Amino acid sequence: MSLPSRPRAAFVVTGSELVRGERTDRNGPFLAREALRLGLEPARIAIVGDRPEELEAAFREGLGADLCVVSGGLGPTHDDRTIELLARAIGRELVVDQALERQIGDVSRRIAERLRRPYADFQAGVRKQATLPAGASSLGLAGTAPGVLLEANRTVVVALPGPPGELQRLWSRALETEAIRRLLERARPPGRRVLRFFGASESAVAHALDQAGGEGEGVEATVCARDFEVHVDLVVDDGGEPRADALAAALREGLGAHLFAEDERPVEELVLALCRARGLSLATAESCTGGLVAARLTSVPGASDAFRGAVVAYADDVKRAELGVPAEVLEQHGAVSAETARAMAVGARERLRVDVAVSVTGVAGPGGGTPEKPVGLVYVHAVAPDGELAAGFSLPADRETVRRRAAASALHLVRRLVTGG
Amino acid sequence: MSLPSRPRAAFVVTGSELVRGERTDRNGPFLAREALRLGLEPARIAIVGDRPEELEAAFREGLGADLCVVSGGLGPTHDDRTIELLARAIGRELVVDQALERQIGDVSRRIAERLRRPYADFQAGVRKQATLPAGASSLGLAGTAPGVLLEANRTVVVALPGPPGELQRLWSRALETEAIRRLLERARPPGRRVLRFFGASESAVAHALDQAGGEGEGVEATVCARDFEVHVDLVVDDGGEPRADALAAALREGLGAHLFAEDERPVEELVLALCRARGLSLATAESCTGGLVAARLTSVPGASDAFRGAVVAYADDVKRAELGVPAEVLEQHGAVSAETARAMAVGARERLRVDVAVSVTGVAGPGGGTPEKPVGLVYVHAVAPDGELAAGFSLPADRETVRRRAAASALHLVRRLVTGG
Repeated sequence: MSLPSRPRAAFVVTGSELVRGERTDRNGPFLAREALRLGLEPARIAIVGDRPEELEAAFREGLGADLCVVSGGLGPTHDDRTIELLARAIGRELVVDQALERQIGDVSRRIAERLRRPYADFQAGVRKQATLPAGASSLGLAGTAPGVLLEANRTVVVALPGPPGELQRLWSRALETEAIRRLLERARPPGRRVLRFFGASESAVAHALDQAGGEGEGVEATVCARDFEVHVDLVVDDGGEPRADALAAALREGLGAHLFAEDERPVEELVLALCRARGLSLATAESCTGGLVAARLTSVPGASDAFRGAVVAYADDVKRAELGVPAEVLEQHGAVSAETARAMAVGARERLRVDVAVSVTGVAGPGGGTPEKPVGLVYVHAVAPDGELAAGFSLPADRETVRRRAAASALHLVRRLVTGG
Repeated sequence: MSLPSRPRAAFVVTGSELVRGERTDRNGPFLAREALRLGLEPARIAIVGDRPEELEAAFREGLGADLCVVSGGLGPTHDDRTIELLARAIGRELVVDQALERQIGDVSRRIAERLRRPYADFQAGVRKQATLPAGASSLGLAGTAPGVLLEANRTVVVALPGPPGELQRLWSRALETEAIRRLLERARPPGRRVLRFFGASESAVAHALDQAGGEGEGVEATVCARDFEVHVDLVVDDGGEPRADALAAALREGLGAHLFAEDERPVEELVLALCRARGLSLATAESCTGGLVAARLTSVPGASDAFRGAVVAYADDVKRAELGVPAEVLEQHGAVSAETARAMAVGARERLRVDVAVSVTGVAGPGGGTPEKPVGLVYVHAVAPDGELAAGFSLPADRETVRRRAAASALHLVRRLVTGG
């Protein structure tokens, strides 16, 4: 059985600072996730600067897809060239949309007043931003920049402003248009299975998948490892359900001890949900992570239901004074030790009057390592009313990676302690 | 005076999880920054999945540049297609490199032993990974995957493994090759000026640039705004020095009160350097940021020279018990108020026995807002031995943005307090 292929979506992200690597693009990944969700095939993300020849070439390639979404280059200045070069790539005249010119003019007058500058300074920019390829329509304004939609041969083209919030807002407008609705009639949103493991190796997960038959028959499998987690993603087409069921069952059977989620919630969200469900309050005591664990927990809306606070005890005397870590423990075992980790967690639980506390101490590097306690050595400890758990690892890596792994370890330790898993 | 154009560099980043937006690419930005630094023109970053037709098209486009760097798709499995499709795009035969096959075989035997699996399981993968386009050479291994270099017509092609650490390691090997050295003889590393402002609007900065003549005559200017900072980047070609000097001088004169750096160090690094230089110890007291300010400070190597610790007081009773915020202040003014922010900072300074403390309290949302205290309302306060400063803002935004802006405000407040600026 062969299914019709999905409509292809191509994304052209413009911006000098992006193509130079000075800023990381967020629009391409957002649009790609949207395409996937809607049942289109995210085929490519091209990031280009504002040179006319690079832009035009990228637009021509994008026009080979069924949907081409462009981000950025819609501003009032000379280096905002998206509309002009899209028109050239498609072979359309540029025309001034007079209703749009009035609308942008109104916004610009208010800006001119606020900045106490003459409106005349803005007039050329207003005219430029109201100039669209023949047949195009506005999706609404972001500041003075219009989102733009047009159809060219068999491609729906959407041009959106670069700031991610604005892009996302006008993208939702594009989804309401007749042109996109017609395109989506040919789309086929795929099924999805997600399995997330902690503490299993990527190769063990890949091997288990292979043994169970691997991808094929309407199932695409992706395996990604990060910070001791391995994420398996099954994208399931019509008819692929039996194979997907078989793969998921095999992974559950072979690696069930490591399986911690079958949805996309990050571990901090699971930890908070577990604590909330059991009526447990939570705190952290952090040294090398310097607040990262608390920051991850509080990134979740509603964290205050369970999370009460944290002590970041970077200096040893803060460990003593604020967490009650005994001076003898620090002297005998050092700040980076299983003993200090335990004393920090016990201290945080008492001081912050919570049910569950987790601690982290380690050598994040790049300096401070010794042969006995090298960069990448980390201890975590969690205490709850009815038990405690300790863990640790020693893996050389850069400072950011060590801290990220340490934070992930602390969160998973709490998860295991609270679930008894 | 017209300068020869720089050699163009194109980057092809492969990975299904990247083109689907499930993971954010770090290799494209790294390689682009490298190209810029070396005096090449970073022309485009293309992100594609592992479908053969998409890959081959992206490689063909990349081969139009002087340097084409490919990341990912070098593994042992069937969906690692970079080498096969590069060979097809260039029009070269595939041949087994026997020395390379022995080298990869040795690594694979050790892996087989460790995993207690028969080496026969690996043999097909070893053969595949030792198969290169005719004329290509290995740059060394990352695990079992070789980095690969070859020259095709006038393009130098480098294929590197996808994991960022491995890519960066083998990239430094590529820089030592004769082919890349020859390419770099035609490169022209540009000059660069960086000016960073805090609290000025992007439009005021752009206007000041325009008034001073704007870009041109060998100077390219980029203006980027983020979290109350505006970054101006001048990329300066031969002969562009006078114009760059004039632009920088005009920005200093017009917006000097907002200028906080003329280098690329982030504000947390500046704050730590300022404290270190003045012998001041530092702590934070955080509510809505939940540890983010401390986490940013401790992301800097050697932070422990000045940073001592933090209290994340998410719950009000932690604000009272750990920071000594009077119950009356919380009752009269609420947890999100200038008064509570001040009491938190004063409390942290006393409790953690530091010279300088900074606090943050606000409504991060999406819930918890009221007409009087809406989502996006934030207060920060900093205290030092000889003075204090307070600030705040109220700007509706998503939770992540509010928290990021709040953290940036806190760090800049410390910077201003310590410099008296």
